[in-house]
Amino acid sequence: MGARLSTLASVGAALALAAATAFGQGSDPLPSWNDGAAKARIVAFVQAVTQPGGKDFVAPADRIAVFDNDGTLWSEQPAYFQLLFAIDRVKALAPKHPEWKTKQPFKAVLEGDMKALAAAGEKGILELVMATHTGMTTDQFAAVVKDWLATARHPRLARPYTDLVYQPMLEALAYLRANGFKTYIVSGGGVEFVRVFSEARYGIPPEQVVGSSVRTKYEVRDGKPVIVRLPEIDFIDDKAGKPVGINKFIGKRPIAAFVNSDGDFQMLEWVTAAPGARLGVLVRHDDAAREFAYDRNSHVGRLARGLDEGPARGWTIVSMQNDWKRVYP
Amino acid sequence: MGARLSTLASVGAALALAAATAFGQGSDPLPSWNDGAAKARIVAFVQAVTQPGGKDFVAPADRIAVFDNDGTLWSEQPAYFQLLFAIDRVKALAPKHPEWKTKQPFKAVLEGDMKALAAAGEKGILELVMATHTGMTTDQFAAVVKDWLATARHPRLARPYTDLVYQPMLEALAYLRANGFKTYIVSGGGVEFVRVFSEARYGIPPEQVVGSSVRTKYEVRDGKPVIVRLPEIDFIDDKAGKPVGINKFIGKRPIAAFVNSDGDFQMLEWVTAAPGARLGVLVRHDDAAREFAYDRNSHVGRLARGLDEGPARGWTIVSMQNDWKRVYP
Repeated sequence: MGARLSTLASVGAALALAAATAFGQGSDPLPSWNDGAAKARIVAFVQAVTQPGGKDFVAPADRIAVFDNDGTLWSEQPAYFQLLFAIDRVKALAPKHPEWKTKQPFKAVLEGDMKALAAAGEKGILELVMATHTGMTTDQFAAVVKDWLATARHPRLARPYTDLVYQPMLEALAYLRANGFKTYIVSGGGVEFVRVFSEARYGIPPEQVVGSSVRTKYEVRDGKPVIVRLPEIDFIDDKAGKPVGINKFIGKRPIAAFVNSDGDFQMLEWVTAAPGARLGVLVRHDDAAREFAYDRNSHVGRLARGLDEGPARGWTIVSMQNDWKRVYP
Repeated sequence: MGARLSTLASVGAALALAAATAFGQGSDPLPSWNDGAAKARIVAFVQAVTQPGGKDFVAPADRIAVFDNDGTLWSEQPAYFQLLFAIDRVKALAPKHPEWKTKQPFKAVLEGDMKALAAAGEKGILELVMATHTGMTTDQFAAVVKDWLATARHPRLARPYTDLVYQPMLEALAYLRANGFKTYIVSGGGVEFVRVFSEARYGIPPEQVVGSSVRTKYEVRDGKPVIVRLPEIDFIDDKAGKPVGINKFIGKRPIAAFVNSDGDFQMLEWVTAAPGARLGVLVRHDDAAREFAYDRNSHVGRLARGLDEGPARGWTIVSMQNDWKRVYP
């Protein structure tokens, strides 16, 4: 028995070592983050909530972390990638819609007239989205998105959009999951758009994606059931809609949130204003050389109130330029 | 090394045995089910989709099983328990609402006039639900439900409602989870009502409950963020709404469904009409001695179309009387 026990002990030690390595305790869990206040706070938070018997310990079932997508997990310039998808779809579908040649905002898209497109405003964008995102089954829509992601290229960076995810955030996701967290996306983007690539790109399965949605309808077509996407908004997962979406889809209050814009302000507030250890991280786009520099003055992903109020609220501001060793994988 | 290897082998054998027992391969995974066609089909399905290399193998990530709640996981007679909750709440809140003494359907509830209540119809029920389920924060609502579940008793069976869950279904849930399934509730009941007890009673966490909902609103009250329940329907998770809810909340097509009424018909159709091994189970309430006997003629949980079309669609009909050794734990 003595021999067996010592064997078990050595097996146990080997397993513990393997676990420590895999869980980032024996090595750096965030190698693409520069050593600094932001990285230190993320690591300190994870250690605090996973320390058994510690005052900030959180049971694994309640370790929920939420991530904004556009500008937090992947880039969002020169426009939200889903809008660039809609624009590409208008061009692809134009032969079937001769009326678009003379009808705004479609005319603007087909002529590449960005000024006229901007003038169409939110209403115009919504028209583009409805014309390109609805009127088909959910399976058909997912296939179109998948095909676009496989073939389309970012206008300036000339890479597939799914290459433009942030390596430091992939590490943060993996680090949290290795410490028992369930990671969710809470995006202003369309839930059925993001679900197409969330598992492959972020390791986040479809059921852990919360987003904006259109209404859908169940139908049996030729004996085969389908779900059809209708040209009506069901839910806008943005601003005060984000905590509402979290409550609706997750039903628990997360303990960590990673975001980048004022559209995430209420989500960050909801997550961090509860008692106990909480982590609120705001990514600041200040890296014109490697990505884009914007925040206070951007038409996309504007960040101003978060910068003003964040520090007093205990939020961690991440500078892409200073805190990240690399941006893309 | 020889000694270590043989020690490891014996440790391995012990672990394998423990796993086999826990996973129901060395013992009966469904001890409260009589041996018969229904039990055999459930077991055969689970074995088929978990057999590595088998033609029906399904990767763990896609092993999604959905369960209706009322009448499938717990009883639903003489009325949905959530309606009995609403009735109890009307009585409890009546001192603050003197106008209810003369206003239907509240008057009917306060006077115990079931005929007048029935006459108020769905519109009346909705009024009761809105008056008792909204106008408070989500935290306040959850506390009220929790308190009611702890103190209320079923009118005929004189037991707490959470005692009236079906032991055979608890075993089916555990059996599926032990085989890598993620189990979800997809209920016509209120999602925030069911979430209060789903984890403790069924082992199903809040984020795996899909249900009907009211609209909610994010607010900051005295510097403290809250989510407020509004008196407006957001989503009805019933009939054709069930596959819509599954698509919206889960974003994957489940491979198994357990249900009991025609309100679940479309969900069962959606789950079972896809290619590959699929399991559709319909529980028939035919046990007046141990529970209730109803189906074709019930005002609650009516089951007729499912019985008529189920067998040809390959659905498994479970007779509570014949297939279940025991009903409640």
